[in-house]
Amino acid sequence: MRAGIKKGAEDINMIVEILSTGDELRSGSLIDSNSAYIAQKLEEIGLEIVRHSCVGDSEENISKILLEIGERADIAVVTGGLGPTIDDLSAAAAARAANVSVEYNALAMQSLEAFFNNRNYPMGPSSKKQAMLPSGSKCLMNPVGTAPGFLIKIGKCDFYFLPGVPFEMRRMLEEQVKPRILKKMGNKETCLVKTISTFGLTESATGEKIEETNDMFPEIRVGLRAKFPEIQVKLYGRGRHEETLRQNMAVIEKYVREKLGRKIFSLDGEPMEAVVGHLLRQKGAGLSLAESCTGGLIANRLTEISGSSDYFLFSGVTYSNTAKVKVLGVSESTLEKYGAVHEKIAAQMAVGAQKIAGATYGLSTTGIAGPGGGTREKPVGTVCIGLATPEKVITGKYHFPFGLRWMNKSVFAMKALDLLRRELLKI
Amino acid sequence: MRAGIKKGAEDINMIVEILSTGDELRSGSLIDSNSAYIAQKLEEIGLEIVRHSCVGDSEENISKILLEIGERADIAVVTGGLGPTIDDLSAAAAARAANVSVEYNALAMQSLEAFFNNRNYPMGPSSKKQAMLPSGSKCLMNPVGTAPGFLIKIGKCDFYFLPGVPFEMRRMLEEQVKPRILKKMGNKETCLVKTISTFGLTESATGEKIEETNDMFPEIRVGLRAKFPEIQVKLYGRGRHEETLRQNMAVIEKYVREKLGRKIFSLDGEPMEAVVGHLLRQKGAGLSLAESCTGGLIANRLTEISGSSDYFLFSGVTYSNTAKVKVLGVSESTLEKYGAVHEKIAAQMAVGAQKIAGATYGLSTTGIAGPGGGTREKPVGTVCIGLATPEKVITGKYHFPFGLRWMNKSVFAMKALDLLRRELLKI
Repeated sequence: MRAGIKKGAEDINMIVEILSTGDELRSGSLIDSNSAYIAQKLEEIGLEIVRHSCVGDSEENISKILLEIGERADIAVVTGGLGPTIDDLSAAAAARAANVSVEYNALAMQSLEAFFNNRNYPMGPSSKKQAMLPSGSKCLMNPVGTAPGFLIKIGKCDFYFLPGVPFEMRRMLEEQVKPRILKKMGNKETCLVKTISTFGLTESATGEKIEETNDMFPEIRVGLRAKFPEIQVKLYGRGRHEETLRQNMAVIEKYVREKLGRKIFSLDGEPMEAVVGHLLRQKGAGLSLAESCTGGLIANRLTEISGSSDYFLFSGVTYSNTAKVKVLGVSESTLEKYGAVHEKIAAQMAVGAQKIAGATYGLSTTGIAGPGGGTREKPVGTVCIGLATPEKVITGKYHFPFGLRWMNKSVFAMKALDLLRRELLKI
Repeated sequence: MRAGIKKGAEDINMIVEILSTGDELRSGSLIDSNSAYIAQKLEEIGLEIVRHSCVGDSEENISKILLEIGERADIAVVTGGLGPTIDDLSAAAAARAANVSVEYNALAMQSLEAFFNNRNYPMGPSSKKQAMLPSGSKCLMNPVGTAPGFLIKIGKCDFYFLPGVPFEMRRMLEEQVKPRILKKMGNKETCLVKTISTFGLTESATGEKIEETNDMFPEIRVGLRAKFPEIQVKLYGRGRHEETLRQNMAVIEKYVREKLGRKIFSLDGEPMEAVVGHLLRQKGAGLSLAESCTGGLIANRLTEISGSSDYFLFSGVTYSNTAKVKVLGVSESTLEKYGAVHEKIAAQMAVGAQKIAGATYGLSTTGIAGPGGGTREKPVGTVCIGLATPEKVITGKYHFPFGLRWMNKSVFAMKALDLLRRELLKI
């Protein structure tokens, strides 16, 4: 597996590790997404994670691994085990590993009291346990939850203990951890990250097209990140002279834009549905969908964006031919003659959707997501897309090589939205 | 954090670890879902994972952690690094840790040749690297991909090396790893797992209702798994007498069914959309949807099931009021008088959807997913659901306490499908 087209910066020599704790993670009941998030965020400020670990809710196992990490690493971020129940053992385990006791921490108590007062909740006795931190540790305030975090040195390593609740962890990582790490890194370096989102090429084809970015500037690393079905090009810049760094980032960005052209749909990491949403809002245009093979996925994506009701009017998920005819006005004879997966049907669906909702644009999909239903002429992975604009109707027929139903639905939806994006931008 | 209502079986003393490798995981570009899957599957046969680790594509770092695990554990499952590229270093790292060389493995070559021959692909020279395994290791055949796995002893630990591609890993875990581990466990014990899926209670309320299952039979452990918005009750049985174990599992299952009643929607781990699909197919009934606040999510879920076109006819995702009126025939005056989020509107939407597609059942949602759009009377989390059957129209108004848009959409969709399920079962 490749993380990108260039390996991590060689000038970094701090050893950084991530530890997640909790029986739900250890037993596989819950997938650990925190560790990946932390790794990404620390990579953005120029650090490279060496190892992730996960242990369950056991004071002995947690303190043991803290000692191991304390011998190896300079910085570690630990998540979980800061709650009020008897299963929450991180403070006790850290104290044991640091060979100190836990003690009442006034700042932690303030953090807890502020939380409960602001919400007019009474504070229960079990919450007071959360104000007990290892002696000599520094309290890390939690502005959005009850569990204060803490910073403690064990061995040669600074351990940042954060809650396991993702939105609390994310906020504290940003406000409490990153500034302290940047200070420890002891330099006035600027870190810049740029995400360029693309659709339409494979990961390796994308990498080949921009291979030269590897050697452009030593302070900028270029990596690829596959987020099916999109491929993100990530620029990680780190340097002492902010102005120069910004200029050099702009040079690479310009180069990548030239090489990848209209395959690029976003320069700030936004998903396709948000990009299309902005464009529709700018034009004051409304969108109506007719989805067969995507089964509501495009509508579901568009409506993940709060405020999408400003431009998203309707989707007719017409799985049956009857619904295609009755709701969208597709012609029965065309259906009979060509079958449902055909550009002519896609065109009629798009026009029908446009009309029914009085929308500026009508967008349609009809295809075979699999695993069943494929034929020699129309194998699994075939999709016909229709786009009705105020002036014309565009159609296209595509074939994707994926075997799994969810992958096909996903790439069909992306392709349809990308056609609309290109039409809105006239590119 | 709690893994369930009872901690792991005490009679197991084998130490089991999981190691994932790859720069994409280490850097956080990809979330590691393999480790959670493996932990769950091994827990099902009575093993408890002690630790997960993750390191990048570095021969040195992989071999180092293999040596550490070799000192601590009895069994370890390792994923990733078995591909044909220079980044794939697992065989080399294992050989280094075991202090042997890599050598050509005839069985691995057979596995590769079979793969390429079956698909009429030519085998490239880089693929031949995949037939080089550590001397003294045992090849684990990969029936669905190019990368053969292997089993090797390092220190006191049996290491099972599997590919990182999820469907290859899963197949090999089942066919190559689990039988060998069960044999090593050296007993004729039977392992049984039962998943009972529920919806409608919180995790803690579910746990309280079935607390007594804790002490019913020592060979059966009962755990809870939250898979938002459903809560699964899992029974893990392990015993020497299969017949007795089955009988005892049935006793607990009966007890859980009595306690949780119609909150239970599946006894074999199937998702709600599959359960509803079976019921509709059994009845020869067709379903049509009218989705406002769920924005196509219900249709998207239903159409994740291959063959759903047999019973799923149509969804009108009517985000705009115009679409509600024009497509579904909702009354403009009712809309004006009560607003879109109202049981009367839900009823009209359900009837409209039922009519338009000539469906047996019409199901509708209208509500406020947030984060914006809430009022004092209709706060974020409010949803009205309508269900039109051949005989009558049922409606309900509910409020859920979730702040996030995706959680609200998800729980609204589940509630609507659950109402339909109960109607189909008359419970």
